[in-house]
Amino acid sequence: MKLVVVGSVALDTLETPFGRAADALGGSATYFSLAARNYAPVGIVGVVGTDFPRPNVDLLVERGVDVTGLASEEGQTFRWSGRYDFDLSTAHTLDTQLNVFAGFKPHLPEAYRQAEYLFLGNIDPTLQLDVLKQIRRPKLTALDTMNFWISGKRDELTEVISRVDAVLINEAEARQYANTYSLLKAARDIRALGPKVVVVKKGEYGCVLFAEDCYFVTPAYPLESIKDPTGAGDSFAGAFMGYLARAGRTDEPTLRRAIVHGSVVASYTCEEFSVGRLTTLDAAAIDRRYAEFRRITHFEDERE
Amino acid sequence: MKLVVVGSVALDTLETPFGRAADALGGSATYFSLAARNYAPVGIVGVVGTDFPRPNVDLLVERGVDVTGLASEEGQTFRWSGRYDFDLSTAHTLDTQLNVFAGFKPHLPEAYRQAEYLFLGNIDPTLQLDVLKQIRRPKLTALDTMNFWISGKRDELTEVISRVDAVLINEAEARQYANTYSLLKAARDIRALGPKVVVVKKGEYGCVLFAEDCYFVTPAYPLESIKDPTGAGDSFAGAFMGYLARAGRTDEPTLRRAIVHGSVVASYTCEEFSVGRLTTLDAAAIDRRYAEFRRITHFEDERE
Repeated sequence: MKLVVVGSVALDTLETPFGRAADALGGSATYFSLAARNYAPVGIVGVVGTDFPRPNVDLLVERGVDVTGLASEEGQTFRWSGRYDFDLSTAHTLDTQLNVFAGFKPHLPEAYRQAEYLFLGNIDPTLQLDVLKQIRRPKLTALDTMNFWISGKRDELTEVISRVDAVLINEAEARQYANTYSLLKAARDIRALGPKVVVVKKGEYGCVLFAEDCYFVTPAYPLESIKDPTGAGDSFAGAFMGYLARAGRTDEPTLRRAIVHGSVVASYTCEEFSVGRLTTLDAAAIDRRYAEFRRITHFEDERE
Repeated sequence: MKLVVVGSVALDTLETPFGRAADALGGSATYFSLAARNYAPVGIVGVVGTDFPRPNVDLLVERGVDVTGLASEEGQTFRWSGRYDFDLSTAHTLDTQLNVFAGFKPHLPEAYRQAEYLFLGNIDPTLQLDVLKQIRRPKLTALDTMNFWISGKRDELTEVISRVDAVLINEAEARQYANTYSLLKAARDIRALGPKVVVVKKGEYGCVLFAEDCYFVTPAYPLESIKDPTGAGDSFAGAFMGYLARAGRTDEPTLRRAIVHGSVVASYTCEEFSVGRLTTLDAAAIDRRYAEFRRITHFEDERE
């Protein structure tokens, strides 16, 4: 397996001003893998309950996602329920039922331990550390996290941050972790712990990449209409890591392109509920929007 | 006069987490002209009271701003008092004293009526219309506005919008005016009224340019530390219009460069209180940051 993601597989119930969905396929590992499959072979490490609909597993398999690492445990699948107001950038959690995810002990199948690329989705940093120990000689490891772990398990989180190559983090969480308003300072602090690459995600406002002698700022791809922003960050991560896995390099131009691929795939994700758009996405659609992204963001030097 | 701005000249008292300033030189026309002077001869139409400190006028004149159109009336100068929290993107108004600005009747000196470029700062749309009538054969007219006029003088605002070539407007105000969350739809609605160019300003998140077959999205220039965001939007407008006035064209590449110049000058504005940085700014500093802006936002096409 070239690329492995560890994270949640969930059933989401959500409401936006544009509709609602009940028990829809969701979870960070789901969005990540459905985005990454466009770039490289990807396997999921996660857990579902015995209630998890078989068609969801079939859907992943049909899209080329390896589910060897997806465990099924007695009990109910992780369920998240949320609501978005017109300000689509903030999810209001209505209910979280961890269910079998509460006892999640990530176990990497033998084939996954050889993975060159590893993404640690937003789970308990203690589990993230445990996964890091199971993988043999990764070329690039990355993690995501959230406010809950920053305030609740700060030391463990700092430990795992110091052991990965890249951190993908939301704007507010970067500020919270580094205790500063300045994203530049926050990224510097995180990079000082070890990671060579820090990506600060700003949702509808794009993202910023910080790496060695590299600093790249990009807006989000502007959408005419957004139906459901759930999974935008995870599918960003999936395309970003998938692109790097396919490229086999992390030089600056490659990192920049990976960021744009992440933005492009995340923008598609928001166009339909749940994983609807991700399941039909293909390389042609990605390339088309990538070219458009370049067209709308570049400017020429002056010659006058 | 190549370029004329009509707007407020004020004394600002403000507080940010990084300091405070009392009776500091401010106002939309002030910021606009101090930004625009780097590009083209610019004149101010505004009004101050007899209390307006002479050194403020001297400062404008020394920086090459024409003040023939700056009237002095018996009474106090317009005063604005505000506070910024750590979220520096929102100004909380503490007090507004219109003073002589309440009776402002913009009068363009003869030399200004020949201006090719006109910017109508955020004032009563009825006054904006009146100014439009005083100018002879402008090549490009633009306006800014705010929520107060959108809700209070919507018809008059629509009338003046329909008569200008460009609209520069904040994200929230574009949404309010067009009654839609979608900025694409808001810009389309505004352009349908007549303006060929719509610039939606998103503060620290950059801006979007909408024009004929042209769509350009750009982040704000990222700052290590921001001292005072007052005047960022007005100095953006000043550099944008000044650049267009100097170029003498509004083709797409020129519009894009004008946007980036606006962003660059606005970023400098935020680095010091009041007009501090604008008064020392020069072409070399602008060019340096413009080149840096390109470096941090561009990505190459894939060749692999």
